[in-house]
Amino acid sequence: MAIKRALKVARSDNFSAWYQEVVREADLAETSAVRGCMVIRPWGYGIWELIQQGLDRRFKETGHENCYFPLFIPLSFIAKEAEHVEGFAKEMAVVTHHRLKMIEGELVPDPEAKLAEPLIVRPTSETIIADSFRNWIKSYRDLPVLTNQWANVVRWEMRTRLFLRTAEFLWQEGHTAHADREDAMAETMRMLEVYRDFVETDMGMPVVPGEKTANERFPGADNTFSIEAMMQDGKALQAGTSHYLGTHFAEAQGIKFQAADGTEKFAHTTSWGSSTRLIGGLIMTHSDDDGLRLPPVLAPKQIVVVPRLRGDGSDGELLAYCNGLQQQLRSKTALGAAVRPSVDTKDKNASQKRWDWVRRGAPLLLEIGGREMADKQVSFLRRDKLYNGEKIATSTQSADDFVGNASKLLEEIQANLFAEAKGKMQRRITDSVTSMDDLKAFFGAAAKEDEETASDAGPGWVRVAWSKPERGDMGAIEEQLGALKISIRNAPLDQPQTHRKCVFTGKPGVEDILIARAY
Amino acid sequence: MAIKRALKVARSDNFSAWYQEVVREADLAETSAVRGCMVIRPWGYGIWELIQQGLDRRFKETGHENCYFPLFIPLSFIAKEAEHVEGFAKEMAVVTHHRLKMIEGELVPDPEAKLAEPLIVRPTSETIIADSFRNWIKSYRDLPVLTNQWANVVRWEMRTRLFLRTAEFLWQEGHTAHADREDAMAETMRMLEVYRDFVETDMGMPVVPGEKTANERFPGADNTFSIEAMMQDGKALQAGTSHYLGTHFAEAQGIKFQAADGTEKFAHTTSWGSSTRLIGGLIMTHSDDDGLRLPPVLAPKQIVVVPRLRGDGSDGELLAYCNGLQQQLRSKTALGAAVRPSVDTKDKNASQKRWDWVRRGAPLLLEIGGREMADKQVSFLRRDKLYNGEKIATSTQSADDFVGNASKLLEEIQANLFAEAKGKMQRRITDSVTSMDDLKAFFGAAAKEDEETASDAGPGWVRVAWSKPERGDMGAIEEQLGALKISIRNAPLDQPQTHRKCVFTGKPGVEDILIARAY
Repeated sequence: MAIKRALKVARSDNFSAWYQEVVREADLAETSAVRGCMVIRPWGYGIWELIQQGLDRRFKETGHENCYFPLFIPLSFIAKEAEHVEGFAKEMAVVTHHRLKMIEGELVPDPEAKLAEPLIVRPTSETIIADSFRNWIKSYRDLPVLTNQWANVVRWEMRTRLFLRTAEFLWQEGHTAHADREDAMAETMRMLEVYRDFVETDMGMPVVPGEKTANERFPGADNTFSIEAMMQDGKALQAGTSHYLGTHFAEAQGIKFQAADGTEKFAHTTSWGSSTRLIGGLIMTHSDDDGLRLPPVLAPKQIVVVPRLRGDGSDGELLAYCNGLQQQLRSKTALGAAVRPSVDTKDKNASQKRWDWVRRGAPLLLEIGGREMADKQVSFLRRDKLYNGEKIATSTQSADDFVGNASKLLEEIQANLFAEAKGKMQRRITDSVTSMDDLKAFFGAAAKEDEETASDAGPGWVRVAWSKPERGDMGAIEEQLGALKISIRNAPLDQPQTHRKCVFTGKPGVEDILIARAY
Repeated sequence: MAIKRALKVARSDNFSAWYQEVVREADLAETSAVRGCMVIRPWGYGIWELIQQGLDRRFKETGHENCYFPLFIPLSFIAKEAEHVEGFAKEMAVVTHHRLKMIEGELVPDPEAKLAEPLIVRPTSETIIADSFRNWIKSYRDLPVLTNQWANVVRWEMRTRLFLRTAEFLWQEGHTAHADREDAMAETMRMLEVYRDFVETDMGMPVVPGEKTANERFPGADNTFSIEAMMQDGKALQAGTSHYLGTHFAEAQGIKFQAADGTEKFAHTTSWGSSTRLIGGLIMTHSDDDGLRLPPVLAPKQIVVVPRLRGDGSDGELLAYCNGLQQQLRSKTALGAAVRPSVDTKDKNASQKRWDWVRRGAPLLLEIGGREMADKQVSFLRRDKLYNGEKIATSTQSADDFVGNASKLLEEIQANLFAEAKGKMQRRITDSVTSMDDLKAFFGAAAKEDEETASDAGPGWVRVAWSKPERGDMGAIEEQLGALKISIRNAPLDQPQTHRKCVFTGKPGVEDILIARAY
């Protein structure tokens, strides 16, 4: 007998519809009355808070301080960037008026309150932050400046998908200034490693860190590095980027300092960012056909206790027992933080609650009724191993044993989710592709599929060698990749000693790169 | 001989200029290239992070969950509010276009990318959140809904002052929905008490909680409550507000639910907020003519160790000693959290550093040179008691004793700053005013002063009785108060058994109220 899963859509039916179902059924986020802007619901925002904590701690440990810069950027700053940056994106929210007025019974932008210079809602903050850096940095003694900002940004996306691509999203953007290239490059690589460590350790999401090719660089960067994660449909998701910006922004905005030798120099800057998109990655890495599965480090509630209330006089005692268990669990530490237990006392039946928490991905789920209380036992589910063959895998333990083992159990779940995802990723990175024909054979069928209705049976990634063709040759290659709907994700930091022939040109390879479809 | 103070302007010279000097010299914030928008610098943002932590913990302890709602609000939502709300403020940032375009060499809003409906950058989120609540709330089982949001908001202020009044500011806004008035009013009062507790306990800022009069209510509220703090110039600062909104927003946006008895009802909603304005209040409560003084709970660095480096071979040993001290201090707990020590290793001389940290308000400042290290001693300054008569009050202790006493010292400083501020406030609340003539005598001179150049010798507050005159009579009274540049701040929750005669009408009083000039 087939298992009846908690979601209506399976990954193998329609990956995109399945994703949206997980987001909805796990109460993570929803669309709003404003085109392209999402509402992040408490369970989704709780995950974001834990992401913020994990990253923020690492930023502070590496010497960064948080600041806050204006939401608005003068159009002239953007124009300056546009001059410098080819391929500059222009889809932005533009503020043109600062007052509303009732005119003929209708509330409209007041024509007399038109701004002399339009303001742009920040799509990113390089230019406005560079303006502050210019004032802060006078001497080599002021360097390095190591700042980060947690903020909302807006990019007017036409086709939006919750967490993955929305007009407004939440993110952090690190911005630093240094005396020379060496120091700035060290920072760039340090922050790439911070992202890798956070995403793998806390999110349980395996990634490949590497350098972007020239065409995929952040506009204005000398070098761009990324961590790339593999989703369960085999596509790549860029989960964080770190840029060495050279002296481009410093020159455009006049960030100069007096060096130790008395000469005047431009600062070398970096920027690095990650966003609520990470939650999209989390979902597509760990979730199954029963909903979200959360690694304990990112679970706002790690152990949910569901009392089997009967609506009679016995409920008081059962609740007291559950609260007592919660109390004991709260005093434990797992994965570097206090354990987060919770008792679900909502006015719903226990079976509904069980499936609510399964869909939301709580790592451990306890169900306690009168009998368990009398026997001082608990029966529990591990969300990462929900089924044993065709049956729900309920375990039973004495309450004392469960409390004693809870930390270890959470640590096991964290490790298991990472190991599972890592195994999946490794199995789907192919290195048998050696020519453009191979590439076409590998990705051709998938390229013809409709993205909105495709299953999770995507082809995965290929790892190939290339000869780093010159700009002119790259144009034709990019065109062929585009037709296959694939792109070069990055050149992994971890490179072999020798390289195969270039997959594009047949010339001797100089570097390994990853090629994939991407979000 | 007079003491040379660390700031150029004293409170008694020009309070407003002094305030701006504290903000600048303590590295808290600065103006930006965008009119009315501030840059919050690391030391200022560090204080904000601690404010967020203190409030967020209390919000969660009282059952609230954080969410995130869109930055933009459709104009039609605002129009709906405008219909309902008299005295609706119209100074808002209006987004009218979603793309820029290069036209004749100039980057401009693309005329072809004009939005069908303008979007407003949120000045507050009642309307957009009500839109979500309508979808979330179907049954009495879904209530209460207890949410909070940390966000940036924009109100187009014409005259701005850092932290106190800026076009963009950071805040939290709580929004809740309840089944009936009783539950919603309990929430309103609970959150007022959360604000009072946070502001007095963590910020060391004494306040008077009370209810706003009808004229001072939040537009659309049935009841508005505030906590009012007294600044050192005797003016009042509203430090937090909590509103019972009745069913107004529920009716406007259709937040209905099926009650337990099967009938359909409108939800009762509340909202409550506090903002980066609190930092302005913190400054004007505790700072002196040497700069900021931080209560330890809100000090990003509580104990700053300044090594007297000599730039020679002995520095390594001295730094190691200071780092060892830091390590020992870090293992201590004070005021419910780990102690936050820091060693200042910047390339500056020790005296410069001392005064930098005095101006920034670090609660304890240690200076350690070769001799202290040899004697295993520390000499330290308490920022809250910087002078002993005309001399800097340096204390000397064995390093072991200092480490052992550090927690107690921090707790003393926290208590002392609150006691000092409370004493100042109490001395400046007068209850000898009993008539309009008294009021004129009390506030008349101050009303003629130029706000931008006034000293800190303001008259303070008066506590009077009133008879709650009807709307018509209140018009004339408000006019008289306006001429004196004063307003009714609130009716304190703490009321006497009997009341004097009404200060305005001479009729029997029914309630005590506070009257003051305000920020």
